[in-house]
Amino acid sequence: MSSMYDASFDGKVLTCKAAVLWGPGQPLIMQEVQVDPPQKMEVRVKILFTSICHSDLTAWKGEDESARAYPRILGHEAAGIIESVGEGVVDMKKGDHVIPIFTGECGDCVCCRSEKTNLCELFAVNPLKTTMVNDGKCRFSTKDGKPIFHFLNTSTFSEYTVLDYACAVKIDPEAPLEKMSLLSCGVSTGVGAAWNTANVQAGSTVAIFGLGAVGLAVAEGARARGASKIIGVDINPNKSIKGRAMGITDFVNPKDLEKPLHEKIREMAEGGVDYSFECSGNLDALREAFLSTHTGWGLTVLLGVHPSPRMLPLHPMELFAGRQIIGSVFGGFKGKTQLPSFAQECMRGVVSLDEFITHELPFEKINEAFQLLMDGKSLRCNLHL
Amino acid sequence: MSSMYDASFDGKVLTCKAAVLWGPGQPLIMQEVQVDPPQKMEVRVKILFTSICHSDLTAWKGEDESARAYPRILGHEAAGIIESVGEGVVDMKKGDHVIPIFTGECGDCVCCRSEKTNLCELFAVNPLKTTMVNDGKCRFSTKDGKPIFHFLNTSTFSEYTVLDYACAVKIDPEAPLEKMSLLSCGVSTGVGAAWNTANVQAGSTVAIFGLGAVGLAVAEGARARGASKIIGVDINPNKSIKGRAMGITDFVNPKDLEKPLHEKIREMAEGGVDYSFECSGNLDALREAFLSTHTGWGLTVLLGVHPSPRMLPLHPMELFAGRQIIGSVFGGFKGKTQLPSFAQECMRGVVSLDEFITHELPFEKINEAFQLLMDGKSLRCNLHL
Repeated sequence: MSSMYDASFDGKVLTCKAAVLWGPGQPLIMQEVQVDPPQKMEVRVKILFTSICHSDLTAWKGEDESARAYPRILGHEAAGIIESVGEGVVDMKKGDHVIPIFTGECGDCVCCRSEKTNLCELFAVNPLKTTMVNDGKCRFSTKDGKPIFHFLNTSTFSEYTVLDYACAVKIDPEAPLEKMSLLSCGVSTGVGAAWNTANVQAGSTVAIFGLGAVGLAVAEGARARGASKIIGVDINPNKSIKGRAMGITDFVNPKDLEKPLHEKIREMAEGGVDYSFECSGNLDALREAFLSTHTGWGLTVLLGVHPSPRMLPLHPMELFAGRQIIGSVFGGFKGKTQLPSFAQECMRGVVSLDEFITHELPFEKINEAFQLLMDGKSLRCNLHL
Repeated sequence: MSSMYDASFDGKVLTCKAAVLWGPGQPLIMQEVQVDPPQKMEVRVKILFTSICHSDLTAWKGEDESARAYPRILGHEAAGIIESVGEGVVDMKKGDHVIPIFTGECGDCVCCRSEKTNLCELFAVNPLKTTMVNDGKCRFSTKDGKPIFHFLNTSTFSEYTVLDYACAVKIDPEAPLEKMSLLSCGVSTGVGAAWNTANVQAGSTVAIFGLGAVGLAVAEGARARGASKIIGVDINPNKSIKGRAMGITDFVNPKDLEKPLHEKIREMAEGGVDYSFECSGNLDALREAFLSTHTGWGLTVLLGVHPSPRMLPLHPMELFAGRQIIGSVFGGFKGKTQLPSFAQECMRGVVSLDEFITHELPFEKINEAFQLLMDGKSLRCNLHL
């Protein structure tokens, strides 16, 4: 961190360490990279903490061939400090604490001006995007000048990264940065799905399919809103203990059931839950989540990533039972507008972040952190840069 | 109509004419049937006007084998007068003008008590239901005592029918009954989809796929709300003229296009319409309707009946573009609570009913009326009993 306030970098290329992916499924290579200065409406950020989310895993595996691009710097859940700002940036300055957001907010497009969506037309999440909007080029390169591609508007597996102004959110400098990285993806995605997308109310009943960090963040959001029943569903029995510490009132392991999962949940929740959340990325779970809600008003919120080419396993006539399904991206949060106050709510304890970070490792051990997530042993392993 | 106020029928079986279906796709047989008196919480209604909707066609064809039941009296769009009431009925009396509703409202179940749905747990539309709720028996029989099955809680192709109290709505006696039958299904379904399900606002943009009576009722509802653009889509070019008389501002015939339909509509509506309505029962149209809406907030309302076993032609990841799809039954109207005031809005001209009834025929010519609908020649043929 010695270079953080070093004015000598201003406007200049800097060299730092980054974890670079050179091919699908290969171990990340910790190497020196060059980072260009921020251009117009961009900021360069010193990353202090970053963690790994399932979207990083998906990109790392490279199962979606159209999303392959190498070399590339992954990572999108992080927190850091502004090192320098490009021309025209007025809402952030050197030294500000920021969290990167993979679903940006330009503030000016038809979507940003609408209250109905957080999907910015310019900076919505897009795994196929590999360069900056300004000039279609990379801000990263190897020491011998080979461009290194960006990922999800963020590329946080690097000591320094360059972000569009739309993809960096200034937060209260008193907020604990080591926890604020959770707001960069997982916790905002889950809590926001409960608060913004579903609008869970006191007394609502909820079922959550898949108790990873996102699913547990949904539970925490539903608990904070006063949901009366929060049913957690996971095939890993160990999730029961963790879940109960985070708002889950009832746990169901589908492997223990002799009847269809949705029948069990409908029994548990007097005809069906008000809201179900699909956080597993499994299409069979999606169908069960849909059928677990109450006829007439049940809402299924889709959070899981479904790389399978299979279509939605729902028949059109099933929509006439009054059940709905809706996708939620980044919890429906408009990042720059809403995350600063969400961060303060977390500081006040409205939402507890304590249980999400299960491991801490130095940045150099990033491949170990990938393994912990793949093995289902960690929720979030916080990497210290 | 001579028997309408004849007290001699009270509590007794009466004999009248009905159009009976004896097998899939067979011409309806106009014959004498016996109609039992209304039991507890039932009413017997003298039908004065009835018309044919596509759901009647579907049932008539019998393509869904599980919904076959013969002999049966179809029909669910009608208007009439109460002939007698069963024990316990307090909100209707002999002589009241009523419209039957296939999606009833018991007023007491968890769904009726919820503001979020109109799908009564006891009397929601169900094409498999063939008998009365009270005793699981039929109120119709042939002269030699063979039971005749009910259809959609209504069975209006008969001079007299028996309805559960939940499935009859008392309306203003000043309302023109010959038009009020439209509120029994098609017009309420379409206008309600625009008003209740989508909540179209002044300045909204709308696309309607399939310009039958329901699709045109959506247009009329959107026009009444002040939508700025109402795009009608139909492969029948004759629908253009009728459509323009009923709120359609732009017409697209997919057969005339050299590009995908959704691309054309996105061009016409600056990135996509706010709301699309699928009224054709065609799954390819459903997909085009979904993709025709604006990212971030586009809402597709499903109205068409899809008897095909094919699942929804949507990929789960497509939900992350912020487009939603929702089914609408009976336009989201709670029949007994909301239709009386809707009928008055129609009387005041908020919604115009004039263009929907394209033909008038005596009840005896019901098979001719079926043919007019099948040939796409009529919107509604009003049958006079």
